[in-house]
Amino acid sequence: VKPRALFLLQAGWNELGADRFASPVYEALFAGRDSYAPESIDYFVGFRPEPGFLKTLPRLKAIISLGAGVDGFLRDPDFPRHVPLVRSVDPNLAIQMSEYVTLQVLTIHRHQRFFDAAQRDHAWRQRMLTRNAGDIRIGILGLGTIGNLIASRLRTFDFQVSGWSRSRKDVPGVKSFAGESELPAFLSQCDMLVCVLPLTHETRGILNAKLFAQLPEQAWVINVARGAHLIEDDLIAALDRGHLAGAVLDVFQTEPLPSDSPIWAHPRITATPHIAGITEPRTALAYVEDCIARAEAGKPLPNVVDITRGY
Amino acid sequence: VKPRALFLLQAGWNELGADRFASPVYEALFAGRDSYAPESIDYFVGFRPEPGFLKTLPRLKAIISLGAGVDGFLRDPDFPRHVPLVRSVDPNLAIQMSEYVTLQVLTIHRHQRFFDAAQRDHAWRQRMLTRNAGDIRIGILGLGTIGNLIASRLRTFDFQVSGWSRSRKDVPGVKSFAGESELPAFLSQCDMLVCVLPLTHETRGILNAKLFAQLPEQAWVINVARGAHLIEDDLIAALDRGHLAGAVLDVFQTEPLPSDSPIWAHPRITATPHIAGITEPRTALAYVEDCIARAEAGKPLPNVVDITRGY
Repeated sequence: VKPRALFLLQAGWNELGADRFASPVYEALFAGRDSYAPESIDYFVGFRPEPGFLKTLPRLKAIISLGAGVDGFLRDPDFPRHVPLVRSVDPNLAIQMSEYVTLQVLTIHRHQRFFDAAQRDHAWRQRMLTRNAGDIRIGILGLGTIGNLIASRLRTFDFQVSGWSRSRKDVPGVKSFAGESELPAFLSQCDMLVCVLPLTHETRGILNAKLFAQLPEQAWVINVARGAHLIEDDLIAALDRGHLAGAVLDVFQTEPLPSDSPIWAHPRITATPHIAGITEPRTALAYVEDCIARAEAGKPLPNVVDITRGY
Repeated sequence: VKPRALFLLQAGWNELGADRFASPVYEALFAGRDSYAPESIDYFVGFRPEPGFLKTLPRLKAIISLGAGVDGFLRDPDFPRHVPLVRSVDPNLAIQMSEYVTLQVLTIHRHQRFFDAAQRDHAWRQRMLTRNAGDIRIGILGLGTIGNLIASRLRTFDFQVSGWSRSRKDVPGVKSFAGESELPAFLSQCDMLVCVLPLTHETRGILNAKLFAQLPEQAWVINVARGAHLIEDDLIAALDRGHLAGAVLDVFQTEPLPSDSPIWAHPRITATPHIAGITEPRTALAYVEDCIARAEAGKPLPNVVDITRGY
């Protein structure tokens, strides 16, 4: 008898045919469509279950997040803390994030938005580079798998890269800052700041007026982590005061970003609809199958979240 | 007595103070400003002298191009073919070109123009990637110093890279096609085509209707070489017929691109004002000084152009 995995899907995944979920390892059921006895469910797989939902499944052996961030699980006060929570570590996701960040960094460095505006005006406006890539300092908030790959791709272009994380990291060519005490020194040397932090109670709202004031004049902010890391009003104030040069946002306090948000029309914000890293069904489902096979074989699960730490 | 170098400058360089040209190796004079006896000039340094001008300098020991392309010299029917012509090989120029091409390739791959349009509409429009980078084939026309660095930067992102050149090249991870006979096979496997060829009588107008027809459906064309490589009307026809998906142009038949050119407003062309690679005065002048010092010491000059070949 195969163990039963209950999938809770979201936009984009709902259109996938059931055959994509077929597996020799588990039987797939779909929340909101299939009927099942709660005690028959062995594994939960999905993104952001409603608070209180998971405690209705009394026999769970593991909970598998389809996204890299697990804040959508830990927000639940009734989250069953005795069940191992596995976060998706999709190599493809880190690759996508590093492409996105490199694209945005090069867009800034090469003044592409200035040339876009000149093209709209049918005007030949040349402009020299402000600095060579080797003279631009990029700081990455969060030096896990994703932050590491971003750092390595940016180093290829000779950008100066530093990183900030809870504990000190040893990444070749990347200056590591660690802990609350070294955050000011880190921020003071970021011409561009890239946020890829996990969302925890310590990092919620970390991109705020106090942090922006510690960045150099004319710094850039790129947020590809979670909308809740950023106080959007503080960002707009720092841009409008002229302290920050611009921002690139892929995530927002409210998603989809409401059409009346001032972010859309801000002349110095690039906004994209949470597409920096898209979990690819094929890769993610292979990961789910591997996790369940390991658990059934009594082997240790990979990437189990430290619930106290939050990632 | 120091040898005399005559500089012919162009837009951007004219604003530089004369002290930037001061050197222990040569005495700098400026065409159109200083008076001089033509036979007293030992070296000519500049971009695009008027046809016939160089033959008025009878004692030249070398001609040094400030740009990487020397088509602006070889167009002169009276070019003094017995004088060595040195082309600028600025490592910084190759770096800049590789940044520009990577930026444009990632912009296409990541649908950034689609998201720009969505932002203008204040609309949350998600879109999956068409393919992973590893499934996108990029072909580089011209595998010299610049083409090589572009290939290597694109390989970092796992793009499939091939190159076409007159003679076969051995670049790690890059499939090499050589000569006229292998051009069709090369073109048939280019999802994106990047032109960094030197402009010669063999490559003038190479980006034409016949070439576009040999590219796969929905291919992209990126021209960062010379405007005269491209038949602009053929490009627009191939775009409008829907065979090509889009183009990125940094160089044009006429520069500055006239404000009434249909290129500016074409929805599937990105146009920038010849800024992919900007010769940096500091680097270029150090190169000029090194060339003249070598020539004066009787050492061989670097990067002497093969006049018959044209680069």
